[in-house]
Amino acid sequence: MSSTRIERVTITPVAFRDPPLLNAVGVHEPFAIRSVLEVHTNDGILGLGESYGELTHLEHLRLVADAVVGTDVWDLNRMFSLAASALGGAVGADRHGLTGQISHAGTVLRAYSPFEVACLDIQGRQLGRPVVDLLGGPVRQAVPYSAYLFYKWAGHPGEAPDRYGEALDEQGIVDQARWMLSEYGFTAIKLKGGVLRPEREVATVHALRDAFPGVPLRLDPNAAWNVATSNLVGRELEGVLEYLEDPTFGLEAMADVARHVAMPLATNMCVVGFEDLAPAIEQAAVGVILSDHHYWGGPRRVQGLSAVCDAFGLGLSMHSNSHLGISLAAMTHVAAATTNLTYALDTHWPWKDEDVIVPGVLTFREGAVAVTTTPGLGVELDRDALDRLHRQYLNCGITARSDTIYMRRFDPSFDPTPARW
Amino acid sequence: MSSTRIERVTITPVAFRDPPLLNAVGVHEPFAIRSVLEVHTNDGILGLGESYGELTHLEHLRLVADAVVGTDVWDLNRMFSLAASALGGAVGADRHGLTGQISHAGTVLRAYSPFEVACLDIQGRQLGRPVVDLLGGPVRQAVPYSAYLFYKWAGHPGEAPDRYGEALDEQGIVDQARWMLSEYGFTAIKLKGGVLRPEREVATVHALRDAFPGVPLRLDPNAAWNVATSNLVGRELEGVLEYLEDPTFGLEAMADVARHVAMPLATNMCVVGFEDLAPAIEQAAVGVILSDHHYWGGPRRVQGLSAVCDAFGLGLSMHSNSHLGISLAAMTHVAAATTNLTYALDTHWPWKDEDVIVPGVLTFREGAVAVTTTPGLGVELDRDALDRLHRQYLNCGITARSDTIYMRRFDPSFDPTPARW
Repeated sequence: MSSTRIERVTITPVAFRDPPLLNAVGVHEPFAIRSVLEVHTNDGILGLGESYGELTHLEHLRLVADAVVGTDVWDLNRMFSLAASALGGAVGADRHGLTGQISHAGTVLRAYSPFEVACLDIQGRQLGRPVVDLLGGPVRQAVPYSAYLFYKWAGHPGEAPDRYGEALDEQGIVDQARWMLSEYGFTAIKLKGGVLRPEREVATVHALRDAFPGVPLRLDPNAAWNVATSNLVGRELEGVLEYLEDPTFGLEAMADVARHVAMPLATNMCVVGFEDLAPAIEQAAVGVILSDHHYWGGPRRVQGLSAVCDAFGLGLSMHSNSHLGISLAAMTHVAAATTNLTYALDTHWPWKDEDVIVPGVLTFREGAVAVTTTPGLGVELDRDALDRLHRQYLNCGITARSDTIYMRRFDPSFDPTPARW
Repeated sequence: MSSTRIERVTITPVAFRDPPLLNAVGVHEPFAIRSVLEVHTNDGILGLGESYGELTHLEHLRLVADAVVGTDVWDLNRMFSLAASALGGAVGADRHGLTGQISHAGTVLRAYSPFEVACLDIQGRQLGRPVVDLLGGPVRQAVPYSAYLFYKWAGHPGEAPDRYGEALDEQGIVDQARWMLSEYGFTAIKLKGGVLRPEREVATVHALRDAFPGVPLRLDPNAAWNVATSNLVGRELEGVLEYLEDPTFGLEAMADVARHVAMPLATNMCVVGFEDLAPAIEQAAVGVILSDHHYWGGPRRVQGLSAVCDAFGLGLSMHSNSHLGISLAAMTHVAAATTNLTYALDTHWPWKDEDVIVPGVLTFREGAVAVTTTPGLGVELDRDALDRLHRQYLNCGITARSDTIYMRRFDPSFDPTPARW
């Protein structure tokens, strides 16, 4: 086979409608932003990737794109090293405060990741095989996701209520869960917390437990609580939660909580890069790592993370940002090939009503997405939709997610400080 | 691409001449035994693997071979799971005592490994790409190996002296090193110890240091010393050794030594499987892990091991048994794709004068083997040689390596007890 080289990369920022989902740092803006990567090869194959849409990140992606032109799509190690060089000492910003500090290493992992996804897509198309086969083959034919529940407003202020309705108390969340489980068949539930006072969120989890006996439940307050509150919640929800995600802020505080509660602590905030693993493991701070190929440096590095978790008896789950279909496809292929990724994955999928891919390929049955068996990621771009979401990006004016700034428009006193409760 | 399935597997035990190399448990027998795996696909591709030759292991390979017929060569995760099932609760035996306890998990990793190698060979041949490309692409174009020095007898008892000559003192080893470096260009040296009294081996290392200033040196007594001796040797060779390999026996003893000596401790005896990593890291027992795809479960699992080492700041090197060209090719492809495998690899290559592959492909320049760029592993079977080495296997009667039993033929009082000095 002659070499297949990257000839041209197109990076298109897009925006898609997002409901007013509440979290510890504010509320989702009317649009979520993402970037769509198209990697074209010298032999006419197109590979797709999807990543964050923040302006700084787009600049990083463009630096990497320029650096990797001419690289063989199988030469991923070289591509990574070119990406690292192109980024120099750049450090990304996490202005929304939900995913921990971003180091320089993390910046490289984030900017490289969609290129690896696109190259795996190309490799698969070239081979006539799904991406999962390039990662060792499927250990499961369908990947289970969890119902990702959010407290939310009825609609964005000044707009008509959205189709999801308001959820600001126990009943609202139970109704939301009922809708989501009936529409998608999810068999696990995650509640985004850090929104109401902790005792209200505990009550909501109990209401979910009563309404859905036997369904694994998770609660994620994004580090809104101090250690004492975390311990209290942990004890009140003992036997109820399958894991408690990021109850509090920082590794030491997490380790403190871990010593006092029975359920495993999960994290996508205090362990967000390979340099965080050793201290977290040494302190026994967490029991479940949330992988996410977008910030763990691509599908192959998630498999490295999986080896670390396996060696240390840590559980492995998967984190989600608001995302489109290219990411859902990639997440599904990665999870399908990762033996110890046994928890249902997070996804914001039910919260969006538009996409850049041709619809119909990725569908939920009993809460799981079947791994596609067609070449590559198995999804195709819908060019009209891509254009529309790009225009939407240009029109919406959002260039960096900021749930806090948006929230303060309506509640100037809103306080996103971690561990505030 | 239509699926490429395993149609037939041939496992051929072979024996090749081996000089009387001395180690802590005895002396190499006149023949080393290995197994050659030929995996044939439904579309006529042949993939090669090489593994251990012990009878129990051959039985395990045959169980796995029967189980994986019909499996797609890209479906490695499924192949692994079939191998594990086929082996039931089988546990391999390490009768030669040089590689630690073999667990059930380790037994599966050992029996699965050559099948993964053969499938990667097939994948590469199918794609027209070298195996290194299937592992992420080369981070180095040539893989450095170390000169593996042994105290040795002039020849096997009752036979004429071999071409390597005797090496039973400082001068013998320095001469051996001089020959090996001049013939292969090695730029690092490993001395197999545990043979003479520790002070003599320290003197040998000093003689090597004097003769080859600047060349990294390692000493590996295969756990023949107690903690006190290990500490003493460690202190005497401070600033001289790049690492000290398995000075003593067991994780606790290794951790004790690690606290008292300046150089990193390396191991292929107390960390030989994924279940050993957590305790070793927790106790800070070792600084360098010797990978070896033959017992770490194949090339892809070595990459998982590499992720663990990277996350915990451990060095990564590579262990060698007496091996043939299929293994050298596989070791080279694995190491070429593994960024943090920065130490020169071990190899017994200079100690053999026959092989099963067509010669000329794998050559040493400046102590390194260039990564082949032809499809797959880049090596081809020499059928006449394979037949000859198989007949040699049948004739030599060796079915399990036992350096101790062979040594006791000449020295009935020989004591292989670990930590005996």
